[in-house]
Amino acid sequence: MDPEEFRAAGYRAIDWIADYLGGVDRYPVLARVRPGATRAALSADPPEDGEPFDAVLRDLDETVVPGITHWNHPAFFAYFANTGSGPGILGELFAAAFNTNSMLWKTAPAATELEELVLDWLRKMLGLPAEFRGLVQDTASTASLVAAAAAREAVPGFDVRIRGLQGTPGAPRLRLYLSEQAHSSIEKAAVVLGLGLEGVRKIPVDGEFRMRPDLLARAIAEDREAGWLPFFVTATVGTTSTTSVDPVVPIADVCEREKLWLHVDAAYAGSAAILPEMRGILAGCDRADSLVVNPHKWLFTPVDFSAFFCRDLDVVRRAFSVVPEYLRTREEDEVRNHMDYGVALGRRFRALKFWMVVRHFGIRGIADRLREHIRLARLFADRVDGEPGFVREAPVPFSVVCFRARPDDLAERVSEPAVAAYLDGLNERLMHAVNDTGRAYLSHTKLGGRFVLRLAIGNLRTTEAHVRRAWELLRDHAARIDSETRPDRL
Amino acid sequence: MDPEEFRAAGYRAIDWIADYLGGVDRYPVLARVRPGATRAALSADPPEDGEPFDAVLRDLDETVVPGITHWNHPAFFAYFANTGSGPGILGELFAAAFNTNSMLWKTAPAATELEELVLDWLRKMLGLPAEFRGLVQDTASTASLVAAAAAREAVPGFDVRIRGLQGTPGAPRLRLYLSEQAHSSIEKAAVVLGLGLEGVRKIPVDGEFRMRPDLLARAIAEDREAGWLPFFVTATVGTTSTTSVDPVVPIADVCEREKLWLHVDAAYAGSAAILPEMRGILAGCDRADSLVVNPHKWLFTPVDFSAFFCRDLDVVRRAFSVVPEYLRTREEDEVRNHMDYGVALGRRFRALKFWMVVRHFGIRGIADRLREHIRLARLFADRVDGEPGFVREAPVPFSVVCFRARPDDLAERVSEPAVAAYLDGLNERLMHAVNDTGRAYLSHTKLGGRFVLRLAIGNLRTTEAHVRRAWELLRDHAARIDSETRPDRL
Repeated sequence: MDPEEFRAAGYRAIDWIADYLGGVDRYPVLARVRPGATRAALSADPPEDGEPFDAVLRDLDETVVPGITHWNHPAFFAYFANTGSGPGILGELFAAAFNTNSMLWKTAPAATELEELVLDWLRKMLGLPAEFRGLVQDTASTASLVAAAAAREAVPGFDVRIRGLQGTPGAPRLRLYLSEQAHSSIEKAAVVLGLGLEGVRKIPVDGEFRMRPDLLARAIAEDREAGWLPFFVTATVGTTSTTSVDPVVPIADVCEREKLWLHVDAAYAGSAAILPEMRGILAGCDRADSLVVNPHKWLFTPVDFSAFFCRDLDVVRRAFSVVPEYLRTREEDEVRNHMDYGVALGRRFRALKFWMVVRHFGIRGIADRLREHIRLARLFADRVDGEPGFVREAPVPFSVVCFRARPDDLAERVSEPAVAAYLDGLNERLMHAVNDTGRAYLSHTKLGGRFVLRLAIGNLRTTEAHVRRAWELLRDHAARIDSETRPDRL
Repeated sequence: MDPEEFRAAGYRAIDWIADYLGGVDRYPVLARVRPGATRAALSADPPEDGEPFDAVLRDLDETVVPGITHWNHPAFFAYFANTGSGPGILGELFAAAFNTNSMLWKTAPAATELEELVLDWLRKMLGLPAEFRGLVQDTASTASLVAAAAAREAVPGFDVRIRGLQGTPGAPRLRLYLSEQAHSSIEKAAVVLGLGLEGVRKIPVDGEFRMRPDLLARAIAEDREAGWLPFFVTATVGTTSTTSVDPVVPIADVCEREKLWLHVDAAYAGSAAILPEMRGILAGCDRADSLVVNPHKWLFTPVDFSAFFCRDLDVVRRAFSVVPEYLRTREEDEVRNHMDYGVALGRRFRALKFWMVVRHFGIRGIADRLREHIRLARLFADRVDGEPGFVREAPVPFSVVCFRARPDDLAERVSEPAVAAYLDGLNERLMHAVNDTGRAYLSHTKLGGRFVLRLAIGNLRTTEAHVRRAWELLRDHAARIDSETRPDRL
């Protein structure tokens, strides 16, 4: 594709995308395809000869788009709703065009330095201490794995880098700690790092789904007594199910006393600290050893972009760096070679998109939009609270509401097994019914064993009208499903 | 940025990129900035208010571009030269615009299924067996880590997922095998997985830098005798230093006999199997348990896109899958949820770019270009072979040439320490001198302790003229540096 062909095809792509983004609410939010349908509609074999861009665009329209679940849709309320904003999309376009690999400073100085710069911007925006140094990982799962690997490397008496976990005879088994509500990625990290699921201890939460620091301290004491070697604690600021905020200050006290690495998973909610009135959510995080915030969640940056901050990047380097001769450079002592701080050697120019996003919106523009999302979530929570047939299941500190349908006449009987089972089924049916309309997409979790719906606000296109419509859909479908499916005996 | 603003900014971005790509050879290949210069030239603080796209483009021109090492430049000959082709760039643009997260099939059915489809296309293009199932990882480093983690999970007598590496008292230490020439990422994987560098045994190579299967078998026997538990062997098709091809057939024999997981790292060279006349490079790979090929290296696809193939994805899932309630879906038994097969939960729509690349070029178009790169490398190798002041240091099976300047009058004396040291210095100076011209960019390795230059061809814009010019630069600078720096005593 020569530059002029690229220009022509590029214009068409931009037109296609502008039209798509301008009309994304024409599509059902959740794709309606059956498993296998998209693949079956496309050629099973690669073409022998090249095809025109038109043919590709036609397949995109006819086959790919119907198989897309539209994360851009203003009524996408599942998981953590996000936005790949215009400047973020263009940032990705430039990154692909430069196609640099910032494995070494030398192979992409601007990519390396812009990455360091924008993470420092983010650090300042969040009010984190100047000792925190940042770099970009693909996702919070990877960032948390990097944190746990660094913590493992820092454990005295082991030399995991050289001897591995099996190489220190008689060494105690390593264990890490997180709340029952922490993200599954920390458990995955424990599996990958060779600690196993037995190397993970989940600490119970209080009535608002926050880790109990007293029970953390007790668990650590019990484990030491039983011969385990505690080394790592994850506190979560904004858990995935309910966006609860663990009490980081007393958790940091425990970590300090016990000399454990404190990692903070603020992947979703950390961004809210940009709001002056929300700065307090990161109280205690200045004492963490590492922290992750995902601009690809709530800072309008296309996936993937996870900001990993760490107080001591040298430990991270010790945990990951293996430098063969062919990757040695004469500058290596004066620069950071980002390949040394994670699993992947090849690294995209991810900083560009975040830089373009922050420059487009400015701090004020970002803060205004986050504030609006929080307002919309409170509005929805008020609807739930005001409706006898619904009940809210968790506090709403940010932009996610956990709730369920619970017909008023069953309110007193929720502990009866038959009623509990009926309510779980009702809510699951309700979620699928609403999602199947194509006019909203919600996901679920379980809290205290109950099936609970989550409405997550995070898309720039979402307005009060979308939230009201989602509420009406939920209310109407709940009433219908209850009347159609309630067994006589209830 | 509303759709019309996006359209206008998008056109400008496309114009900028078309002009950049059309004139990339105006820039020095290797960035000339000093460490810290790019960052220092940009605002240290994020803007309070949004800025116009113009301001961003101006900084891109004035500050970012001078800090870019131009992987797009036709005289980029370092590491493995690659190309983010036009259709690949547009594929990334669409992926960013859709901004799907294919963690679950449901959250992006088309992304999941297109990923499975295009990896099956690639499997067919390479002539790999139908039992191989593919998925995309970011880089070969990650793909190899996934392979080793799966192999670790499959070791009988351990249950790493549950009990970790420390949880089986008296268990032997795990060890993996690779050649001295294998990529450093496998060692990094061993560190991350908790095996440590002691869990890695490097097998010597033959005179053409290929693993010695007899020494592999002997090492395994010795290690078993000494109480190690061998579990994983990496064979490399196209090593990083010299692109040598390990003898996979006898290595597979050893693995079969010893019941070890065989992983093939064909990250760079595997793509050459698309050429019918090169199909033999993958001989024996049909017997591998896993294999990685990187379309972002030699298949014109922007970073990152690493194709990971595996015979038994269920083992991979066992090694990685942790599914909390909030990620459960009703389809989970009939589909593949790609979050279950690696570290990252969030996953970009990477398949789009590769799909667009293959459709644009067709198999024939890709093969023609790879064939031309191989021809250009042979042409350069012929120049080296024909020049008394240079010597080739390895065979050239693909598109990389390893060579060094060695003034003819020193040819007989290379084993003298002073001569050896002089030649290393000469070649290092030669590399920097050529790179500093901005007219070519080469990297180096060490072979048998000697500093060796590598010229790697892989960019679509590279023509015979660029290769000839690089050769002339090297020849002229070598003569000059030799005459200017040779000590009298030599």
